Amino acid sequence: MSILVLGTAALDTVRTPSGLRKKMLGGSAIHFAMSSRLFTRVHLVAVVGSDFPDSYVRFLTRRGIILDSLLRAQGKTFQWAGEYQGDLNTAITKKTELGVLASFCPVITAAQRSIRNVFLANVDPDIQRSLLDRMDAPRIVALDSMNYWIRNKRPSLKRMLKRVTIYVANDQEARSLTGEHNLLKAAGGLLRMGPAMVLIKKGEHGVIFCSDKHMFSLPAFPTRKVIDPTGAGDTFAGGFMGYLARVNKISPAAVKQALAFGTVAASFNVEAFGLDKTSRLTMKDLDSRLRQYRQVVLF
Amino acid sequence: MSILVLGTAALDTVRTPSGLRKKMLGGSAIHFAMSSRLFTRVHLVAVVGSDFPDSYVRFLTRRGIILDSLLRAQGKTFQWAGEYQGDLNTAITKKTELGVLASFCPVITAAQRSIRNVFLANVDPDIQRSLLDRMDAPRIVALDSMNYWIRNKRPSLKRMLKRVTIYVANDQEARSLTGEHNLLKAAGGLLRMGPAMVLIKKGEHGVIFCSDKHMFSLPAFPTRKVIDPTGAGDTFAGGFMGYLARVNKISPAAVKQALAFGTVAASFNVEAFGLDKTSRLTMKDLDSRLRQYRQVVLF
Repeated sequence: MSILVLGTAALDTVRTPSGLRKKMLGGSAIHFAMSSRLFTRVHLVAVVGSDFPDSYVRFLTRRGIILDSLLRAQGKTFQWAGEYQGDLNTAITKKTELGVLASFCPVITAAQRSIRNVFLANVDPDIQRSLLDRMDAPRIVALDSMNYWIRNKRPSLKRMLKRVTIYVANDQEARSLTGEHNLLKAAGGLLRMGPAMVLIKKGEHGVIFCSDKHMFSLPAFPTRKVIDPTGAGDTFAGGFMGYLARVNKISPAAVKQALAFGTVAASFNVEAFGLDKTSRLTMKDLDSRLRQYRQVVLF
Repeated sequence: MSILVLGTAALDTVRTPSGLRKKMLGGSAIHFAMSSRLFTRVHLVAVVGSDFPDSYVRFLTRRGIILDSLLRAQGKTFQWAGEYQGDLNTAITKKTELGVLASFCPVITAAQRSIRNVFLANVDPDIQRSLLDRMDAPRIVALDSMNYWIRNKRPSLKRMLKRVTIYVANDQEARSLTGEHNLLKAAGGLLRMGPAMVLIKKGEHGVIFCSDKHMFSLPAFPTRKVIDPTGAGDTFAGGFMGYLARVNKISPAAVKQALAFGTVAASFNVEAFGLDKTSRLTMKDLDSRLRQYRQVVLF
């Protein structure tokens, strides 16, 4: 089963204690696609500007990502510049230039309307809505957002939460949307807003999954090598959704396995700048690290 | 196999968003004993003052804790007062009165010298040393400490680390003793200081275990009900050491199972003030929550 992902394609400039990288290919939809492509066919819905390098387009095509709905608009590609210090857990945003993202209206092909798995990565919830309105009858719709939209477009975001299957939040977002500090209480609050499942990403501390009936908690894959965590959350979501799309079910056992695949995918992402590592990954690499992860976690 | 635990017996005054409790029975050795007693016979080595209520002595005796080396000295029992706000992760210490702890010199019986499992809970490393000097040939010696001793008695603490099997630290302590932010690197640094195994407690984020050959990571048992986290780390250590003492081996599988028992023991501790919950626990409660925990974690 294919996946359709809506989100940003970006030029990322990132400084970490390991160095500086300028205008790397990045963005929420791109990081998501880079891990979900290992499981299934991934259709990208995003916009780039006239400055977007052809080499980046070829880079995506070579990795099997379907670009039928990658819009090229006049103007500049969305740019993000950020810095990580000390603990590498929190990005300090240095610059955000929306460029062509400011007037983005997602368009998809007739064939893409019937795709059953949809990931609405972090963009304006009104853009997420306009894409979802175009879909026929998706089986799973997962949505990610960010604090900016929680503050500035809360009503739009909350309307979207009534329409999605899975809300993917990080711990701060879950707390800020519900006003609950305890993450299980926050997850309960989010479930009451509409989604059947809630997934709370805790960065280096792993992930919590909650539905009405189930609760799972997995630690991150411990790694000594944290080079650049940008996109780890979307890489996680890509592994998670990719696995669910491939097995074409959302039983508790499938969800757990999907969480584990998301976790190991994300662990590769942080070990190098941008897509350096995830763009070279194979399913064999994921499987091999999943075996290591089992040794680390299972008792 | 019995366990000998050296540490504090305290009168704790704790304020949390759930209320205020004054002069509860507490202290590192007491919290440790309350969970380790479920697995094996526990010998307490601690000092209390003339103000220590007889009812607390009876409370401990009734729970099977062996008090042959609980010293009663002239003066006041060690008192700690602390407050938790918001996230309940960090205690704000309001008062520490050492009382009789200031001149504590642990004494044990001849029979206790041959106990094979020793837990040196958080007290002055010089007191930990004087106890360890009295032991014949312990099989496992685990040591806990705190930032105060890392700052003020670093050489004594580092000498002790050369003599112990397991160093039990929290994340801040591991970072402060090694200067490494990444916890795996910190664990590596701690292993180089002497212990064969290092256990890093991360509070609500669970625990990491490292030896030269193995690395395990387990999340905390997720709970909505956090009333008072005081003593959770020692309760964890009690479950961990208790299990290892009972099975009388320290294979990787035994260590993992011990980590899981420590985790569920600690989850009971935080659900009530002081010892309210752990003092009523049975092995059946632990087993039952361990089954729940398996559902939450295993994939």
